[in-house]
Amino acid sequence: MTDTVKTIFTPSGRRGEFPVGTAVLDAARSLGVDIDSVCGGRGICGRCQISVGSSPAVPEAPEHLSGWTDTEAGYRGRRSIVAGGRLSCMAELVGDIVIDVPPESQVHRQVVRKRAEVVDIAVDPVVRLHYVELTPATMEGRSSDLHRILDALEQQWELRNVSVSAARLGPMQAVVQSSDDAVTVAVRNGFEMIAVFAGFHDAALGVAFDVGSTTIAGHLCDLSTGAVLASAGRMNPQIRFGEDLMSRVSYVMMNPGGEVELTAAVRAAMDEIVGELIDSAGVARNDVLEVVFVGNPIMHHLVLGIDPTPLGTAPFALATDESVSGEVGELGIQANSGAHFYALPCVAGHVGADTTGAILSESPHTKDPVQLLVDVGTNAEIVLGNKDRLLAASSPTGPAFEGAQISSGQRAAPGAIERVRIDRETLTPRYRIIGVEHWSDEDGFAEAAEKTGITGICGSGIIEVIGELFLCGVIDSNGVIRDPTNSDRVVVDERTMAYRLVDGDSPIMITQNDVRAIQLAKAALYAGVRLLMDRLGVVRVDEIRLAGAFGSHIDTVYATVIGLIPDCDQARVSAAGNAAGTGAIMALLSAEARQEIEDVARRIEKIETAVEPAFQELFVGAMAFPHASDAFPELAKVVDLPEPTPAGERRGRRRRRNQRVTTEGTP
Amino acid sequence: MTDTVKTIFTPSGRRGEFPVGTAVLDAARSLGVDIDSVCGGRGICGRCQISVGSSPAVPEAPEHLSGWTDTEAGYRGRRSIVAGGRLSCMAELVGDIVIDVPPESQVHRQVVRKRAEVVDIAVDPVVRLHYVELTPATMEGRSSDLHRILDALEQQWELRNVSVSAARLGPMQAVVQSSDDAVTVAVRNGFEMIAVFAGFHDAALGVAFDVGSTTIAGHLCDLSTGAVLASAGRMNPQIRFGEDLMSRVSYVMMNPGGEVELTAAVRAAMDEIVGELIDSAGVARNDVLEVVFVGNPIMHHLVLGIDPTPLGTAPFALATDESVSGEVGELGIQANSGAHFYALPCVAGHVGADTTGAILSESPHTKDPVQLLVDVGTNAEIVLGNKDRLLAASSPTGPAFEGAQISSGQRAAPGAIERVRIDRETLTPRYRIIGVEHWSDEDGFAEAAEKTGITGICGSGIIEVIGELFLCGVIDSNGVIRDPTNSDRVVVDERTMAYRLVDGDSPIMITQNDVRAIQLAKAALYAGVRLLMDRLGVVRVDEIRLAGAFGSHIDTVYATVIGLIPDCDQARVSAAGNAAGTGAIMALLSAEARQEIEDVARRIEKIETAVEPAFQELFVGAMAFPHASDAFPELAKVVDLPEPTPAGERRGRRRRRNQRVTTEGTP
Repeated sequence: MTDTVKTIFTPSGRRGEFPVGTAVLDAARSLGVDIDSVCGGRGICGRCQISVGSSPAVPEAPEHLSGWTDTEAGYRGRRSIVAGGRLSCMAELVGDIVIDVPPESQVHRQVVRKRAEVVDIAVDPVVRLHYVELTPATMEGRSSDLHRILDALEQQWELRNVSVSAARLGPMQAVVQSSDDAVTVAVRNGFEMIAVFAGFHDAALGVAFDVGSTTIAGHLCDLSTGAVLASAGRMNPQIRFGEDLMSRVSYVMMNPGGEVELTAAVRAAMDEIVGELIDSAGVARNDVLEVVFVGNPIMHHLVLGIDPTPLGTAPFALATDESVSGEVGELGIQANSGAHFYALPCVAGHVGADTTGAILSESPHTKDPVQLLVDVGTNAEIVLGNKDRLLAASSPTGPAFEGAQISSGQRAAPGAIERVRIDRETLTPRYRIIGVEHWSDEDGFAEAAEKTGITGICGSGIIEVIGELFLCGVIDSNGVIRDPTNSDRVVVDERTMAYRLVDGDSPIMITQNDVRAIQLAKAALYAGVRLLMDRLGVVRVDEIRLAGAFGSHIDTVYATVIGLIPDCDQARVSAAGNAAGTGAIMALLSAEARQEIEDVARRIEKIETAVEPAFQELFVGAMAFPHASDAFPELAKVVDLPEPTPAGERRGRRRRRNQRVTTEGTP
Repeated sequence: MTDTVKTIFTPSGRRGEFPVGTAVLDAARSLGVDIDSVCGGRGICGRCQISVGSSPAVPEAPEHLSGWTDTEAGYRGRRSIVAGGRLSCMAELVGDIVIDVPPESQVHRQVVRKRAEVVDIAVDPVVRLHYVELTPATMEGRSSDLHRILDALEQQWELRNVSVSAARLGPMQAVVQSSDDAVTVAVRNGFEMIAVFAGFHDAALGVAFDVGSTTIAGHLCDLSTGAVLASAGRMNPQIRFGEDLMSRVSYVMMNPGGEVELTAAVRAAMDEIVGELIDSAGVARNDVLEVVFVGNPIMHHLVLGIDPTPLGTAPFALATDESVSGEVGELGIQANSGAHFYALPCVAGHVGADTTGAILSESPHTKDPVQLLVDVGTNAEIVLGNKDRLLAASSPTGPAFEGAQISSGQRAAPGAIERVRIDRETLTPRYRIIGVEHWSDEDGFAEAAEKTGITGICGSGIIEVIGELFLCGVIDSNGVIRDPTNSDRVVVDERTMAYRLVDGDSPIMITQNDVRAIQLAKAALYAGVRLLMDRLGVVRVDEIRLAGAFGSHIDTVYATVIGLIPDCDQARVSAAGNAAGTGAIMALLSAEARQEIEDVARRIEKIETAVEPAFQELFVGAMAFPHASDAFPELAKVVDLPEPTPAGERRGRRRRRNQRVTTEGTP
């Protein structure tokens, strides 16, 4: 042993020389090694655990740390000490050593998700907890409750210039007065004290919301570990004011002040979801310290209590295209009284925080390949580009893809046809309905279908039946229904041609009008995509990510067949899951992610399809089938298609079995 | 004429050379000359008026400005163009010239008060108005409503990094959408957008509150001119929870959560005062953009919704000793929805924002002489020091000076005896009552007094009668009532001696207990003052300022006679008026004043009398009369005294005639 010891920290590789007897945590901090701690080195939180490692030059030498302390022996905290682990605040350096900091002990740990659509993320919490012991109040000097906390934060955590809002003073004082001079302070962004808990407190939670026109989903996360503790969702109660977005805007236009009702409805639903989440996870509402939400511009504005009507008419002016922060209480959501919210930035009147959330999740702006990111709803949000340049637009697809405007269309729900295959010669269909595992021509289908009935056809079913009819020649390239084989499946229905998909008391027909509705919708989407491609100067995209519920459930082959999306290597066309919700979770867990999406949002080039003359031309040109037929010459001869993308399928089945509305809901 | 012209601005003396045709306002700005403008040089606001001056080198040459413009000829704004005046945004430099910027055209203008107790102040408004014309919204580029405003503030006013809170976005958007792309933005502290008005708007108001235990006073000010537009006051409705501060704290202690009621009561009164002020001045509530308040620590905490009970027991811990800002809406006070409040800092559990307000107003911290600043209430706040060092303490005088604990004591109100003189030989008294101009031995007194009755004796009357009795020898140096001349004025009342001041159905007696009560009160005050003097190391103070209602109305000679205040050159003992309220007004009108008092508050040395052993000694020693008798040897022989300080007297009379509760209320 010498007076100083050499120490190497892995995995950072940082190294230094320290006096014998230096606590490992202090050594780590002096080198800027990322080791977590809430208790500030008092052996309470258990977050700073390390183990002894080795290097070619330094063999593993546990004896080069001071002996097991009483504090460690008596440690009974939430995080038990792992085998071979030490509390770095207790163990002291006594000889040359390699110290291994496991991921669990790092503040900026990498969280690896099991669910496919949730990307890995480096946790970089906006809100951090700091346990402090206060100098007792005296009658001399500056010893207000606030000052004692600020002094302790500065002395024990090197946090300077921490501020607190007026409304937090009362709650802060109440805690300090009852706390025996030891409190845990929640600090936001490193400078704002938002909450104070008595004694040592080790729970900081957040909720990420994806506020959709139809459903609202929330995810409860542990802000320090990044774990998703619970997810919940419910229908957007604004639906009673109008099924789709524009009818809600119309409601406000017709009922001045109606935005107040719409705001109250959506906020109440968000509040209820928080309640459901904390009940489900068995945690305390008071520990919810941060809320993030994404949503299309109209939802974004309504959650914030901003009148959405300017978004309904040109020039579709957003109130703000910056990210927005405030106190959660302003939204009428119950959480810790100091909790704050963060709304991701919108880009344009039709390109909202849901799109920026999806961009954050899919990160086209960090990659070389030109990515097309599409989220199809009543409007299709389209993002195209790569790390050099990013364009965004919204295309008015209308609600056909959601089953509206289709004679037998319906939302995705048990009983809805979601998959269709048609025999190329007999034109006999086989199909599958939501809630039943079997195809309609398989044994057991009839019995299983009796429970649900065969109630209609949902978005993904429509895409497939149109695609199949086109491949069979029942629909020609202009979208006209013909009867090439004199089949009894093609009939005259109310003076136009139609295809009989399901017989029975309530037959399901695919009518000429249905085909037209899909043509209009797919042409709008395709024209928007082409407009961006032309603007970006590319003739082909390198990869396509289909975000949202619809994107997760359509078969990308059929989407290409009918010309919904442009040609692309099919191996690089995939579902992105609920990318917007994932982006919200990322922004909840990472300050860096917020900075990133704010920077990206500022440089996105927005294209307003409504005023682009080229869009109309492209739109008309995209009405026909199949501008993309060359991509699948083999399909016209194929009688049966392979199963659709396994990931999307599995998720779809799981969801239906659980019968829960989640962010993965089908269209 | 040459290509450039030399220009000198007075009174700043700044000079420069400018191309012919430069607008005077632009020239001034480039030199940093302080010229006001709300419209940004569009000839709308009329604030930037200048006139042509001269210097030894440059004769007066109005023709060296461009000719009278149509804009000036057609100007019909609120501020008409004065004779010889020009709008500096319209007049262009065409020859060498001296430009005089009158005080009215300066942002940081000096406001000279007519009322004696309100000091002069340089206006340095926290909230400034900026008229901007917005680029119309388009569908290209970043043209959210917020961005158009921020761009305009940057381009037209060089204001960068202006932020806006989430709650302001909705109101902002509503105004912008209805504004025809021209708005006036209220910016606080140069970086926060707090309100937006449609079109050109030229009214920015503020309210300064002095929240006393007994009365609450408010002053409505024009934030740009500094003018006090109206003052109003009312009783503090918390009185129903307890007459004095400690009984209100007791109420909260006995009724947990009772602070909520107390908070609601005081906030409601403040809100009502704002209503009264704007009605009285005929202005719009929506133009109230800033509120400031001062108050003792308990009032300060209660207004902020902070539990005051820790202030009731050692160590008398403040929740915060920093200044506090927030949104006025948090206080339940109706004003512009973006209005903010500012509370001056407290210093210690018994030395509050009323004391820092008084310090700001009296500014001992800027001067050489050692000033004693005293505000007497149930507690006496004592500040002692000069520019080198400032000490503060609070001394528990009790309510005797307010007429409580005195057998015939009462608040200052019509019918209360406020002045007393006693014949040195006959011991016959003469006195004056509030509401009657005559002394009791003058013609017309009896008739005038019939209206009010002679109802009791108020604080200033008590001081005088005790002083007179001491000078007559009726009270000895230990405070014992004696009968040196066998006068029938000295009687036995309930087994102790007493002095008959007024006969009649309800005789007014000065009892031995009354003398004791005053002895205790004056000893507490004097001991506190001496404690600070000892701590500061001075044996004599250079000047004494008596703040507050009591300080404005007592006769400083008698205050010295009975030993309420230490010896001092009587010419340098004076009333400070409502110094706390004046400090609130100063903080309302000046950002610099806020910075100043925050800096001073941090370096005030607080002395807690309750734990100072020396205080008890000094207290016992100060019980006797008259440790200060040497100061007025002539008084023992003088039969009649001169009238008290004219300023205080005049104010007192005026108040009583108007019968309004204002900050000048008598004790």
